Amino acid sequence: MQLKVKILNIDSGGRPIVFLNNKDADELNINASERVTVQTKKKITAIVNISTTIESGFLGVTEEVKKLLSLKQNSRINVDIAPFPKSLQFIRNKLSGKKLLYPEIHEIVQDLVEGNLSENEISAFVTALHMDKIDLDEATSLSLSMVNTGKTLSIDKKVIVDKHSIGGVPGDKTTLLVVPIIASEGFTIPKTSSRAITSAAGTADRTEVLMPVKFTTDKMLQILKKSNACIVWGGAVELAPADDIFVKTEFSLHIDPLLLPSIMSKKKAVGATHLVVDIPTGRGAKIKTTGEADLLARDIIELGRRLGIHTHCIVTFGEQPIGNTVGPALEAKEALEVLMNQKQVPDLIDKACNVAGSMFELLGKKKGYALAKKILESGKAEQKMREIIKAQGGNPFIRPEDIPIGKYSLLIRSEKSGQVLWMENKIIVNVGRAAGAPKDKGAGIVFNKKIGDSVEKGELLFTIFSEKAHKIDRVKYVLSTQTPLGVGKKSDMLIHTITESPVVERTFVIDR
Amino acid sequence: MQLKVKILNIDSGGRPIVFLNNKDADELNINASERVTVQTKKKITAIVNISTTIESGFLGVTEEVKKLLSLKQNSRINVDIAPFPKSLQFIRNKLSGKKLLYPEIHEIVQDLVEGNLSENEISAFVTALHMDKIDLDEATSLSLSMVNTGKTLSIDKKVIVDKHSIGGVPGDKTTLLVVPIIASEGFTIPKTSSRAITSAAGTADRTEVLMPVKFTTDKMLQILKKSNACIVWGGAVELAPADDIFVKTEFSLHIDPLLLPSIMSKKKAVGATHLVVDIPTGRGAKIKTTGEADLLARDIIELGRRLGIHTHCIVTFGEQPIGNTVGPALEAKEALEVLMNQKQVPDLIDKACNVAGSMFELLGKKKGYALAKKILESGKAEQKMREIIKAQGGNPFIRPEDIPIGKYSLLIRSEKSGQVLWMENKIIVNVGRAAGAPKDKGAGIVFNKKIGDSVEKGELLFTIFSEKAHKIDRVKYVLSTQTPLGVGKKSDMLIHTITESPVVERTFVIDR
Repeated sequence: MQLKVKILNIDSGGRPIVFLNNKDADELNINASERVTVQTKKKITAIVNISTTIESGFLGVTEEVKKLLSLKQNSRINVDIAPFPKSLQFIRNKLSGKKLLYPEIHEIVQDLVEGNLSENEISAFVTALHMDKIDLDEATSLSLSMVNTGKTLSIDKKVIVDKHSIGGVPGDKTTLLVVPIIASEGFTIPKTSSRAITSAAGTADRTEVLMPVKFTTDKMLQILKKSNACIVWGGAVELAPADDIFVKTEFSLHIDPLLLPSIMSKKKAVGATHLVVDIPTGRGAKIKTTGEADLLARDIIELGRRLGIHTHCIVTFGEQPIGNTVGPALEAKEALEVLMNQKQVPDLIDKACNVAGSMFELLGKKKGYALAKKILESGKAEQKMREIIKAQGGNPFIRPEDIPIGKYSLLIRSEKSGQVLWMENKIIVNVGRAAGAPKDKGAGIVFNKKIGDSVEKGELLFTIFSEKAHKIDRVKYVLSTQTPLGVGKKSDMLIHTITESPVVERTFVIDR
Repeated sequence: MQLKVKILNIDSGGRPIVFLNNKDADELNINASERVTVQTKKKITAIVNISTTIESGFLGVTEEVKKLLSLKQNSRINVDIAPFPKSLQFIRNKLSGKKLLYPEIHEIVQDLVEGNLSENEISAFVTALHMDKIDLDEATSLSLSMVNTGKTLSIDKKVIVDKHSIGGVPGDKTTLLVVPIIASEGFTIPKTSSRAITSAAGTADRTEVLMPVKFTTDKMLQILKKSNACIVWGGAVELAPADDIFVKTEFSLHIDPLLLPSIMSKKKAVGATHLVVDIPTGRGAKIKTTGEADLLARDIIELGRRLGIHTHCIVTFGEQPIGNTVGPALEAKEALEVLMNQKQVPDLIDKACNVAGSMFELLGKKKGYALAKKILESGKAEQKMREIIKAQGGNPFIRPEDIPIGKYSLLIRSEKSGQVLWMENKIIVNVGRAAGAPKDKGAGIVFNKKIGDSVEKGELLFTIFSEKAHKIDRVKYVLSTQTPLGVGKKSDMLIHTITESPVVERTFVIDR
């Protein structure tokens, strides 16, 4: 069927989508969500929306389609019913509870990356993986096909190391210490990090306060040649692009069946041979119990084995923020102060030395923790960090006091005496985001008290910083209904009461 | 945040959707697929798409949003982050395998009907119902809440009867005989039917050849007063509108977990007290074995009991078309010929008398089958049908030869002698649709041979009719790769061979 192009001036999130009038759709014998081929000199497949506002005889096209085919307003194109994609049959097999094999999974991931699957279909696939419990064979196939549909890094080294955190704990700036500590010993560590999705700061957001993080894979290789380490944003390097698409769906559904393939495909794509994975565990973390954490660790290690990556996992305490700060600039500042030995932040230092120490031991060194601690205290880690900052085009002489923090603040004092009994990660993140983080880098929270600390009535608990006055109002609103930490007596028993028609909300953290 | 309206001139399938620039989305702290409130004098909730082609400061709106708020180009509106819908939490509970209670299901169905759920979310919910196997409690809750979110018919009768077929067999014009047979005995039968989705003709498509089928619920009540029966299109009467939304998603995923609530909600909405459900069974039908059919019948009857509908099920042979015709006009013609006793079509008559007979027995009459047959043979059913045609505004004097059939035809003769060993419903539908059905009412197939018939080489097997010459070419193309029926010796054993990298395709029929 020949139709005229109508350019809609909207983009459709990467997928080629076209709008057909219902009469033309009937004539083509096609239903909404099915696929047509659109042909000029080139031929592509697009997903069909049916719309009565598109005149019969016209094909509404999104920016994606316009660009792929270099279309102009009113130009003529051939539209026909497209052959049924094989991948869809495999998704349907998954919906009937069949385990999928590598060629089937690869077909799905390939169509996903090429934009040939509709939102409906991706959502159904992700839901099916979640409900059917993805097994290690499928996780291996998914990891490999996510690597094979993206770019990979070719670093000419026998040993390439990497670290990862499952995430879920606010204020976790451990990577900013671990990367320079490990790199100080001469190891190559090509760290890619993500920006915050649901949290108040991702490692890429924190790092960006100290240096640029957005590079191509080629530029990333150049940086690694200079400083044998980097901390770059994973979103720009096109490693495992399927993951970015899956994450969007997972985020919207609050499930993450692809957690393992997501992590491991990114590591495989940079060529990692040795990996340490941190699993923060506890009531307010992504993983709630040590039993769960141990099972997850077992799967991660086995998946690593199948992919040729030697992996250790460490289970860490995740019921409160790491260190005393939350928010990109405040966290970057705290990390820099610790690297410079200007400040003692015991839990942050302990965690960093455990991660780096575990990596040293995986690499065959003895007494890893002590070695890591020595490197940090000697100033070698700081020196390495300044090398990385320089290689990534930042200011290598940056001082903590150079980092701008939001000029509006709100001080929260305790209304009673007692002890900090709990901190609620989710509410801390809500407060941080209300203050403007991660978008406003200078927004965040500084804690004066953490779990177990004694508190006097009227004593300062924490301070919120914001770049804009009206965001402080937003914070006040959040704090009027939610409490980020509880002060009380150790003997206080009540957690909470459930009344009629309850809406049960679970914590969900998609950030990886 | 105040933004200016940009009208996009596209509709989004019923759901209010808005397009935000990524900067404005960041400022609102909102991600794609989340919800905003859009406010003028009125306030609605809309789902967010993020698009770089929308200028910052503008809000792209679809037709749905434009109409709901009566928006004009460049007018100013207030956009804010919307509170999290409760229904989404319930969907998430379903994704973790929790059984849902009525208030939770009702919240979901209500948000669905109001357009507050995104494609992603509906798809995940439908997939979860499919994978978790919806139970009778959930089916009951879904049926009731689908009734409660739509219109209902108030007919002032103690007994209201209805029939339904699970579908899946081509050429099934049974309803066109059953409704007048039952109505001849004075019973009220407010039949609503659907149009074809995946088949070559739905009952609404067939009926439309004889009379108009598109009415409001008020008009439907007037028709029922005149003729105590009707056969109308269910899509116009707004009974259980949630079903239409669910069906779209189910269709695109080739699953139908909502089969039972879908059927029973429509029956409950017309106030049915007595119901007969036909379950066509066999290799090429929706239900493959009598064991499956009996289990399905048990669930249907129990669901009927919970909803206050006395229900019988009949299991019928579903491995070939009913009667000799497929396609709206050909089927309407065949039904009319049988009603007029001009033609003997044994399987069609047997099926109609079984359905009507079962209903008579459910209503307390003896020898239902014989009674139905007598009514048909006496001409009373024809007379009643002409009453219904008149009440619905059709020509009550219509003769079979008045019905136009496509003028292009293709005759298919047997290449060998033997017996018809099998017919393949799915391929018959493919051929019918390639010929133009259901859109072109005169397109379809007439069979001269069916399963078990002896065939001589060169004898006519079937004829394809089409309204357009190029659609005959489409049929030839389909027939070059697919065979709708097999002629051979009874001793032929091979079904088919599976070669390397197979793509397993299952038959799927969404038509209910």
